[in-house]
Amino acid sequence: MSDIKEKELEQLGETQVDSQDIFDGFVLHVKKDTIKLPNGNEATREIIRHIGAVCVVPVTDDNKVIMERQFRYPIDRVITEIPAGKLDDKNENRLMAAKRELREETGYEADEWLDLGIYYPAPAYSDEKITMYLAKGLHKGERDLDEDEFLNVEEIPIKSLVDDILSGKITDGKTQVAILKAAAHLNIS
Amino acid sequence: MSDIKEKELEQLGETQVDSQDIFDGFVLHVKKDTIKLPNGNEATREIIRHIGAVCVVPVTDDNKVIMERQFRYPIDRVITEIPAGKLDDKNENRLMAAKRELREETGYEADEWLDLGIYYPAPAYSDEKITMYLAKGLHKGERDLDEDEFLNVEEIPIKSLVDDILSGKITDGKTQVAILKAAAHLNIS
Repeated sequence: MSDIKEKELEQLGETQVDSQDIFDGFVLHVKKDTIKLPNGNEATREIIRHIGAVCVVPVTDDNKVIMERQFRYPIDRVITEIPAGKLDDKNENRLMAAKRELREETGYEADEWLDLGIYYPAPAYSDEKITMYLAKGLHKGERDLDEDEFLNVEEIPIKSLVDDILSGKITDGKTQVAILKAAAHLNIS
Repeated sequence: MSDIKEKELEQLGETQVDSQDIFDGFVLHVKKDTIKLPNGNEATREIIRHIGAVCVVPVTDDNKVIMERQFRYPIDRVITEIPAGKLDDKNENRLMAAKRELREETGYEADEWLDLGIYYPAPAYSDEKITMYLAKGLHKGERDLDEDEFLNVEEIPIKSLVDDILSGKITDGKTQVAILKAAAHLNIS
């Protein structure tokens, strides 16, 4: 580790003193930790442990994106999102998970995959890490949704999606990041 | 409501059957709700209720952004972020909150504020809504950090930040979205 990083950790780092399990759910694992601050004081951190997730920008040969309309219960509305999903287990290969989610939710498989980097949705209180992908060379197959999974699929030109992000019409975080990055990689603005 | 929206809600909507309080913390309010799916089946939703937050891209006259280095305990590392913070209360005016957070964390005040839209970090399990702002016409004053708040402030050209986002070096979600949107509004790419 470089000296600069060591100094920064000394100035800013927090270390665990104690960890209390609050809730061990199916999706959310909530903990209340006591930590030591850089000034020696103790403080509390309420945090979520999450298995991790992937999301995909699937782009057709004529620059349309396979998008989803999905009801999100916490915000009580249907929103426009890219295909995404949780890992099946902590050690699942992330690219494999992205291929699985794309196929299950939309029916598509892709010849080319590009890693668009990592997205931490809420690093102040959650360790969830989402890996973003761009998928090209799409082939349509069969969707494979769970009986209790509901979403509509639609194709939207990436140029319109960029406009809708810039004007504030698309509100999902991962969707905004991944589409803007995909558009930059495809030289579409 | 339009017919299309009504049809979509019928196809995709979920309604609350029951709600159980799991944890009522300082930051996180965790609930386990039973819901009814569009097919009539019941399912469980583990969700976070969050007070809401704001974030700001403060840009100097020579297109540098006032950025922060901050330790994020859930992911155990120091990351680069834009200034941001929770609302003081649910009904706090969001622009006022953004002005407060910018001044407290960096010492800066700004003459011009532009609303960059909404960002839902994790709508599958959290109702947290972050409003993003671009702030220009900066004047330097005094920071006003809590005794137990630690962060380093640095100025970085927005062009470098865009490059670091596209190459995957900046991982915080709201920072990626807000910087890319701010750069588009400033015609910097």
